[in-house]
Amino acid sequence: MHIVAALGGNALLRRGEALTEAAQHENVRHAATQLAALVAEGHRVTLTHGNGPQVGLLALQAESGPKGSAQALDSLGAESEGWIGYLLEQELANALPPEMEIATLLTRIEVAADDPAFAKPSKPIGPVYDEATAKRLAAERGWSVAPDGKYWRRVVPSPAPKRLLNAGSIAKLTAAGSFVICAGGGGIPVTRVDGKWRGVEAVIDKDSTAALLAGQIGADMLILLTDVPAVYLDYGTPAQSALREATPQELLAHGFAAGSMGPKVRAACGFVQATGGRAAIGRLEDAVAIAAGTAGTLVRR
Amino acid sequence: MHIVAALGGNALLRRGEALTEAAQHENVRHAATQLAALVAEGHRVTLTHGNGPQVGLLALQAESGPKGSAQALDSLGAESEGWIGYLLEQELANALPPEMEIATLLTRIEVAADDPAFAKPSKPIGPVYDEATAKRLAAERGWSVAPDGKYWRRVVPSPAPKRLLNAGSIAKLTAAGSFVICAGGGGIPVTRVDGKWRGVEAVIDKDSTAALLAGQIGADMLILLTDVPAVYLDYGTPAQSALREATPQELLAHGFAAGSMGPKVRAACGFVQATGGRAAIGRLEDAVAIAAGTAGTLVRR
Repeated sequence: MHIVAALGGNALLRRGEALTEAAQHENVRHAATQLAALVAEGHRVTLTHGNGPQVGLLALQAESGPKGSAQALDSLGAESEGWIGYLLEQELANALPPEMEIATLLTRIEVAADDPAFAKPSKPIGPVYDEATAKRLAAERGWSVAPDGKYWRRVVPSPAPKRLLNAGSIAKLTAAGSFVICAGGGGIPVTRVDGKWRGVEAVIDKDSTAALLAGQIGADMLILLTDVPAVYLDYGTPAQSALREATPQELLAHGFAAGSMGPKVRAACGFVQATGGRAAIGRLEDAVAIAAGTAGTLVRR
Repeated sequence: MHIVAALGGNALLRRGEALTEAAQHENVRHAATQLAALVAEGHRVTLTHGNGPQVGLLALQAESGPKGSAQALDSLGAESEGWIGYLLEQELANALPPEMEIATLLTRIEVAADDPAFAKPSKPIGPVYDEATAKRLAAERGWSVAPDGKYWRRVVPSPAPKRLLNAGSIAKLTAAGSFVICAGGGGIPVTRVDGKWRGVEAVIDKDSTAALLAGQIGADMLILLTDVPAVYLDYGTPAQSALREATPQELLAHGFAAGSMGPKVRAACGFVQATGGRAAIGRLEDAVAIAAGTAGTLVRR
C-alpha cells in the first residue's frame, strides 16, 4: 500500500520540551524507527511533517541576528524544510534497509493571493509566552499573537494549499522505490503575481498539505501521526470515548476545535471524500497497526 | 549536452554586498536568467551552488537566538540548502519554460571521519571582520579565524567529499528531464560512526562537490561559474593574461592560491582527469558561450 504519513509537530518536539539539537535528534530517531517499521511491512511511504516550533525558532534567530538581514517567512519555511528534512533523512538512513534510497525534496505550494487567511493570522508558530510578554512582543515586532491553550503564541496567516508544484518529482521518485520526504511544514507558500511566482509570508497547515499531497500523488492511504491514540468524542471529560471508525460525514458532524483535532479531522475527511482512499489519525507508535486498521481512528467512505 | 553548473558564492552575493533578502532575490533572479539561457540552447543542466555568506549568517543568527537552541553546522548547512535552493527554484520557475519541472534535493555527502581537514579549519564562512574583532570573536565563541584578503573571517573544517549519498535520485530526475538543484553549499557532510550516519560540523568546498557530482551522475561538462571571465596567469599584475584552454597537467603546473582560483582549478582538473569530460571556469554572464567553448577557460584532456 502507498501511504502518505504526516508527522505532527508533537512527534518532532514533545509538548513542553525545549527545542535543542539533542531533543530533535532523539525524537527524529524515534520517529524514523516507527516509519521504518511501516516500510518493513511492505508499504511504500511518502513522508511529510510539521515545522511549527522550528520555524518559530528560526524567526526568533533571524530577528536576533545582524540588523537588516532577517529572512522573510517563506525563506524561513524553506530553511525549516532543509533542517528537519535533513534530520529525518539521516535517521531514516540509519533505520531503513541500506539499499533504499531516500530523497528530501523542497516543495513549493501554490496558494491564492486573495485567500481570506491573509487578513486573519491564525497559525501558531514558535515558543509559548505569557499573555503580557506576547502582547509586548506583538507591539515591538508587529506580530499577531493569540492564545494557544493556557499560553500565548505568535500567529501567522495560514492560507489553503491549492497545488503542490513539485508533485511530479515526488511521484517519480516514489514510483522508483525511493522513500521521499517532502512538503515539510506544509510546504513553501507561493503565489502568482503578474505572471511570476512570488513567495508569501505564511505557514500552510501541514495536515491540509498532507491531504493534498496524498491526492496529487495517488496514495492509497493518508495517516496523520500525532501523540494521541485516536480521535475522541467528549475529549477531556469523564465521558470521553475513542472513535474507531467513521465516514467523513459522521466525523465532520461532530465538530472539532481548530486548535486540537480540527485540522486533522478536516484533512482526513477531505482526502477520503476527494479520492475514495482511506485516512487515519493516531499515535506515531501505532503506525503499523493504524495502517492495518487495528489502531487509531479510521476514516473511510 | 548534460552540464553540471556550479554557482559561486559571488554569483549569489556580490563582493562587499550586504546579505539581505532583497539582494538575494535580485542576484538569484539574474543567475536564473543566465541558467535558463543554457537550457534554451538545448542543454540539460544540474545546478549546485555555494553557501559561504548564507551559512555564516545562519550561524550568527543561531548564536544570537534563544540560549541553548543553536543548531550545529551540519543542520545550518541543511538550512542553507533549503533557503538558497528555494530562492533558485522560484526564480528558475519564472525563467524556464513552464512545462519544465524543477526539483531541489537535499544532499548528504560522505566524508572521512579522519580527514586531516578536521584538525585544520580553512573554509571561510560568514561576514568579514577587522583583525581585532575577528580575534575577539574567536576568543568569545571558540571560533577559528583567518585572514581572507584584507579582512578576517571565521573558518571551519573543509573535509574532502567522498560520495554523494543522493546521487541516484539526482540522476533519475535529471534523466526524466527535470532541472535539478542539489548539493548546495557543498552538501551536508556526514560520516559513519559505529555503523550509523552522523553529521559533522564542517563545510565541504562546493567546487570539489560539483566535480564529484558531475562524475557520479555522468555529466558531459562541469562549468564553474564565478565573477571573473577566466583563469588568469599572473593575475593582478601588468602581465596578466587569460588562459583560454589547457590540459589538467598544464593548468595544475601553474599553481593557484587556495583563497582564489585554487579550488576551482583543482575541481575542474579533477573532473577532467577522472572522467575524460570537459570542464570550464568563467563568468555567470558568459554561461552559454562557455558551454560552446568560446568564453572562459576550458580544461580538457
